[in-house]
Amino acid sequence: MAKRLLGKEVNQDLNDKIKKNVEKLQKKGIAPKLAIIRVGDNPGDISYEKGATKRCQALGVLCEKVLLPHEVSEEDLLSVIDRVNKDNEIHGVLLLRPLPKHINQELVENALDSAKDVDCMTNSSMTGVFTGKSIGFPPCTAQACMEILDHYKVDCSGKRAVIVGRSMVVGKPAAMMLLSKNATVTICHTKTKDMPSVIREADIVIAAAGHPGVISAECLHPGQTIIDVGINVDSDGNLSGDVDFTQAESVVDAITPVPGGVGSVTTSVLVSHVVDAAVKKAGIQ
Amino acid sequence: MAKRLLGKEVNQDLNDKIKKNVEKLQKKGIAPKLAIIRVGDNPGDISYEKGATKRCQALGVLCEKVLLPHEVSEEDLLSVIDRVNKDNEIHGVLLLRPLPKHINQELVENALDSAKDVDCMTNSSMTGVFTGKSIGFPPCTAQACMEILDHYKVDCSGKRAVIVGRSMVVGKPAAMMLLSKNATVTICHTKTKDMPSVIREADIVIAAAGHPGVISAECLHPGQTIIDVGINVDSDGNLSGDVDFTQAESVVDAITPVPGGVGSVTTSVLVSHVVDAAVKKAGIQ
Repeated sequence: MAKRLLGKEVNQDLNDKIKKNVEKLQKKGIAPKLAIIRVGDNPGDISYEKGATKRCQALGVLCEKVLLPHEVSEEDLLSVIDRVNKDNEIHGVLLLRPLPKHINQELVENALDSAKDVDCMTNSSMTGVFTGKSIGFPPCTAQACMEILDHYKVDCSGKRAVIVGRSMVVGKPAAMMLLSKNATVTICHTKTKDMPSVIREADIVIAAAGHPGVISAECLHPGQTIIDVGINVDSDGNLSGDVDFTQAESVVDAITPVPGGVGSVTTSVLVSHVVDAAVKKAGIQ
Repeated sequence: MAKRLLGKEVNQDLNDKIKKNVEKLQKKGIAPKLAIIRVGDNPGDISYEKGATKRCQALGVLCEKVLLPHEVSEEDLLSVIDRVNKDNEIHGVLLLRPLPKHINQELVENALDSAKDVDCMTNSSMTGVFTGKSIGFPPCTAQACMEILDHYKVDCSGKRAVIVGRSMVVGKPAAMMLLSKNATVTICHTKTKDMPSVIREADIVIAAAGHPGVISAECLHPGQTIIDVGINVDSDGNLSGDVDFTQAESVVDAITPVPGGVGSVTTSVLVSHVVDAAVKKAGIQ
């Protein structure tokens, strides 16, 4: 049976680091603070906001909410971004997206100061991920995958890593991050032919296709480590990943469950980015 | 014997397109213009400058040279960048690099207006390549590889593409460009284990390792298309690519020679970017 790579175990380490940094900041009289900007009342947004707020509270990070009506004008939203940019007490900003269609999302996203861009929303932060330059922060979900690999000491150097999905939120950034860990990286997507044979080449699989069961037994073999980013909800409201967990668990070496895997680490990564932004601003080692 | 993918054939098409656009611009009274900024007297820089100047002249594109001494101050170089940014008659800027060590290259690179960044020097242009957003231009060499594939109608969709090298000039941008052509993309590098077996998986190989003969017969099989980006000079002054051309030519379907392949297309791509920048600025379709 595969080893289960558990989000809660990764979070223990991550949260310990966050708490230590929060203490350092508090000694300097600094209270790290996240601003969450939500436009409208999308249930998915509200749920993510609740999770982030709770994690912030548990880790000693302040959380300011800016709730705006669905009809908010682009101008008003931009002035909110301008205010949080200028507010010295706010260290990180999470803007829940997608934004309503009457707003130019690209314009609003890039109005944010990249130093406060804790979930890789700006073009500058994306450049950081692509080039390896120290600009902004990588997307929380992609980094959560790396945190899991790091925590469980999965050596990526020289290993074959296959990423299923080419989104800007997971696939492409995860590819760049695995490349900087010296993995040989393959990116698959909907146009990939014979996906099972490509995935079989992998030592490490990052599954971010967004379709349940895309990765089944025929893709798998002993020795593989599987990071399942998918969060799919079936008609009964049950969560499942992109990987057929029952099939995979009896074959591969290690796998993240859904729920209890990547998703739970993502929120901790978000909070760690806020604290890291505050540490960087304060010039603390 | 493999079909030779010749730069001069690709350039014919590319140069025809450039000339048509130059004519359109001239009808509007616009003369497309490239500014080349060179610091010091590096022979490689001078050689590239000569090639670019000659190609500009042949295609009806003006070329202004700004030659600065090796000792130029960062401040003076930044004021040159500021001047070319503001000069409405300059549509594209090529800054030869690397810059002398007393200059903050990152700072100077990013001072350029991305609309004039014809060789992907700025972070903004890199974001364009990474995300697929229409910002700046991709690196000329990476795009030259795509121009060759396009000219010879190599269908990339669903094909396995293997890129050898992970530089910001070729490897990573070419990976993103092949991904947007719907190839399944693998990136190899110095830490890749058993490179020959990885390259054998490829339908399309982009060789950008910078070492002669890295790709030999054991990596190759019939059906493959090989784009050789390497330009290596041996002790007798002979040019060769990263691929063992003699071995490859008898095995694969198609291959670019060195010289006469990618390198010669790169200069045309540079000029096409200058003209495209002018077309965009003028709002011509």
